Amino acid sequence: MFTYQTRIKLHETDAAGLLFFANQFKLIHDAYELWLEQMGFGFAELLNSKPYFLPIVHAESDYKRPLFVGDVIEIQVRVVKVGDTSFTFAYTLLNARQEVVGTARTVHVTMDKATQSKISLPKDMRERIQALYDEDN
Amino acid sequence: MFTYQTRIKLHETDAAGLLFFANQFKLIHDAYELWLEQMGFGFAELLNSKPYFLPIVHAESDYKRPLFVGDVIEIQVRVVKVGDTSFTFAYTLLNARQEVVGTARTVHVTMDKATQSKISLPKDMRERIQALYDEDN
Amino acid sequence: MFTYQTRIKLHETDAAGLLFFANQFKLIHDAYELWLEQMGFGFAELLNSKPYFLPIVHAESDYKRPLFVGDVIEIQVRVVKVGDTSFTFAYTLLNARQEVVGTARTVHVTMDKATQSKISLPKDMRERIQALYDEDN
Amino acid sequence: MFTYQTRIKLHETDAAGLLFFANQFKLIHDAYELWLEQMGFGFAELLNSKPYFLPIVHAESDYKRPLFVGDVIEIQVRVVKVGDTSFTFAYTLLNARQEVVGTARTVHVTMDKATQSKISLPKDMRERIQALYDEDN
Repeated sequence: MFTYQTRIKLHETDAAGLLFFANQFKLIHDAYELWLEQMGFGFAELLNSKPYFLPIVHAESDYKRPLFVGDVIEIQVRVVKVGDTSFTFAYTLLNARQEVVGTARTVHVTMDKATQSKISLPKDMRERIQALYDEDN
Repeated sequence: MFTYQTRIKLHETDAAGLLFFANQFKLIHDAYELWLEQMGFGFAELLNSKPYFLPIVHAESDYKRPLFVGDVIEIQVRVVKVGDTSFTFAYTLLNARQEVVGTARTVHVTMDKATQSKISLPKDMRERIQALYDEDN
Repeated sequence: MFTYQTRIKLHETDAAGLLFFANQFKLIHDAYELWLEQMGFGFAELLNSKPYFLPIVHAESDYKRPLFVGDVIEIQVRVVKVGDTSFTFAYTLLNARQEVVGTARTVHVTMDKATQSKISLPKDMRERIQALYDEDN
Repeated sequence: MFTYQTRIKLHETDAAGLLFFANQFKLIHDAYELWLEQMGFGFAELLNSKPYFLPIVHAESDYKRPLFVGDVIEIQVRVVKVGDTSFTFAYTLLNARQEVVGTARTVHVTMDKATQSKISLPKDMRERIQALYDEDN
């Protein structure tokens, strides 16, 4: 499990006074980006140097408690499935009282940049994702 | 079915060159807002004058084809479930060639602003949502 | 003068109940993008097919009246300066009562993609920008 | 001077591959929010408990070097003017090599929530802002 901490910004809320639902997806992607970075695969390198990319083909969120501007949250990142050409991340968002405020999932596929076809997850990336999967299983 | 047309803006894309996945959720909410507005329930009125609100408790998207800056899209909005205290909208995103580029769903519940408890969908709102549901069923 | 109409979306507001100030910059860029598109220089073509790009080196906004979710606004786009390697757009935002709610400016330079150096504004782009300038002067 | 560190997120970039200009305004506001929080005036408290608010009436940014996804930046926050009913913050953005990548300013006024009129900066807020001003002058 990888954990990421952040704070709800004013621009992530809306006139209803709470986090705008779509911004929960931004927050979980921020956590995923930092995990990639710490694995040695920052997005800059992925975009510039790798022959594949990892587009999201499915994303979902549940919303369980309201989040206000200034709330400190922790996002727990897990891998829940590693397939041949795809993998699934799961996210749990906790507030400062360690209550679950939301959960989310993203499903990614591996695509070859040149052919735009699905390919098997490259070895270097598979090792990192498998390692995160193995931590919980 | 309600239809909404828009164009992908530069700030909705990211450095990978395509629509950032979380922004598909912004686009479908834009469509939902315009539908509400045309039903006589704009968000301004909902926020200021109604005793209830309609928070999203679940949202999901699938991504089928890439979207680039400048792409014109149509979003079809349907109601696929009307419950006592909740309802579900489904969205289909089409590009200019009328190909499905993505789909999405949002599940909303009716909450009383004063008590923060779930309540039955108020009659005025139920009528509009039921009418959109009946168009397809 | 080029005019663009839009409506304030919920995700453009924040918990203070009004348009978040940074989103005024998104709105004016949306107007600029549509103008480019209608001039035959959509961003997709600029990014993919032109040897230059037009980065913003300065941007400023003034805020004169509040904007709420659902407010219909008109953005008037003018060119106020055409230099050799730069140009300046000015924007006026009006609400439905035709009151000025805000103004903005963006200063763009022409850069060669290959050398990352400033270059003279290419002839095809200069003609369009000069034509918009001439409409008001 | 107050300093804030962050990292450029994928959703803050656009298809041109760099930070979208409007998002520089989001980043500086994030820095301002954290400063307020550490001064004991988080936005949640400002919105819920104070009889005044501090709307931005002018904002401007200069862009000097490109910012890519994953770039670590430092934002230095200073107060450059304290008036009776307004104050001005200045921001300097530095990359990891301590090069200035951008600068910005925001001008805020003090408004009474009930009357929507400008009022003198309340004593509690003035003290914090004056203290930050005095650090550099």
